[in-house]
Amino acid sequence: MHYKVTLAYDGTKFAGYQVQPAQRTVQGVLEHALGKMAKQPVHVDGSGRTDSGVHALGQVISFDYPGNIPPKNMLMGLNSMMPLDIIIKDVAYTDADFHARYSAKGKRYMYKVALGKYTDPFKRLYTGHYPYHIEPSRIQTALKDLIGTHDFTSFAASGGVIVDKVRTIYDATCTVDETNNELIMEFYGNGFLYNMVRILVATALEIGNGRRDVHDFKRLFEVKDRQQARGTAPASGLYLKEVYYDDATTPGGAAADSSQNK
Amino acid sequence: MHYKVTLAYDGTKFAGYQVQPAQRTVQGVLEHALGKMAKQPVHVDGSGRTDSGVHALGQVISFDYPGNIPPKNMLMGLNSMMPLDIIIKDVAYTDADFHARYSAKGKRYMYKVALGKYTDPFKRLYTGHYPYHIEPSRIQTALKDLIGTHDFTSFAASGGVIVDKVRTIYDATCTVDETNNELIMEFYGNGFLYNMVRILVATALEIGNGRRDVHDFKRLFEVKDRQQARGTAPASGLYLKEVYYDDATTPGGAAADSSQNK
Repeated sequence: MHYKVTLAYDGTKFAGYQVQPAQRTVQGVLEHALGKMAKQPVHVDGSGRTDSGVHALGQVISFDYPGNIPPKNMLMGLNSMMPLDIIIKDVAYTDADFHARYSAKGKRYMYKVALGKYTDPFKRLYTGHYPYHIEPSRIQTALKDLIGTHDFTSFAASGGVIVDKVRTIYDATCTVDETNNELIMEFYGNGFLYNMVRILVATALEIGNGRRDVHDFKRLFEVKDRQQARGTAPASGLYLKEVYYDDATTPGGAAADSSQNK
Repeated sequence: MHYKVTLAYDGTKFAGYQVQPAQRTVQGVLEHALGKMAKQPVHVDGSGRTDSGVHALGQVISFDYPGNIPPKNMLMGLNSMMPLDIIIKDVAYTDADFHARYSAKGKRYMYKVALGKYTDPFKRLYTGHYPYHIEPSRIQTALKDLIGTHDFTSFAASGGVIVDKVRTIYDATCTVDETNNELIMEFYGNGFLYNMVRILVATALEIGNGRRDVHDFKRLFEVKDRQQARGTAPASGLYLKEVYYDDATTPGGAAADSSQNK
């Protein structure tokens, strides 16, 4: 059977999502567990890579499993084999042509920035940190410039192999969490280049501080020059929050799961 | 000068508070930093030990420093030398006869219990976990039995050298954090035996589950038998929240700090 699985993980102790030789990776842990369950190798496709230290609240994977385990049992079985820094949130049957990466229509990332002079010891692995003057309203104004279809060449890590750097951002917001003294930025788009969210956040913080013009994103779209965006916010604040597909393959959705459960 | 310092730390990567050979400890990190600053050894007294994995929101230490550094500068200097899992929150001058441990009049501990079937990957280092049926109102009723002066022999880890196991609890509460699906228990008393809070929490959870009578604490006070309390909640959920002294030595208090600043 073909499965779609939604999971969350604390990225701190992983060398990222993607399998790498002699490294602890999320994909590696998942394939090891499924391989033990199936008694033969199982290859897992993820919606995309997350870097070392980057977290996920709703990463999605798909795989072909040699056998038919009801989704509820697959959920319990996988969770019993997961280390404490991964949790399986949802398991559903899906069509054989569903692919976690190629079928994805959009993704939502969240970035948490701790404010205040010193790094809170309990937040160091789960937020970025900005100890300087910040005006959230400037960031809120600036992020509106991201919405739409743009060439993100200025916001792509050098060394990437992807030639087409045009992406569409559907929404980009910044909210203030007064209780925790944090800024929460969210970016929802059809796709993101390598390090793109972390570069956008670093630039947004400089706009919020006043070191950049409030509409500097517009200028950076035009100059197409990574050197002018410069900063990259740390991995610890970044969360892959949700991956969007067509309705029929929504995790736990009636169409995908129960129709095949009959 | 004699200093009183309040600090917070994430206990995950420490082998507890107290110095141990070849182990990373909070006291060891503090004494190393102060020794570098003073260019001679500085001995630090803590309000008490915390075990490996136990956190502190308001641990208090005292020490004699060979020189006079204004508290604000000491705060900045120490924080610049601290690893990311320790933060210095307050520095004050104090009387030479102040001792973080012997002058303490009381302590407040907090214990966070994550509910829900599976361990949340982001909470595994910062909460205990109770996946079973729980009635918070039973715990709230039970904790009232702790208030007052009792013999805590049933709640002391075996192997302790302390003979007098009578302690006074001023307050013990259990609140429900709906947003995070957690129980928060707090214990305020004049002193706590080794592992006492973690044993009280394990027993309280069994009361909340219904496996023990709601007034089982009363029975356990009388039987004076550690075997009957049994469980010990994990270190990850425990926080030393505050240490109480006389008003004159309150951290940042006007009397202790500014009078000597003149």
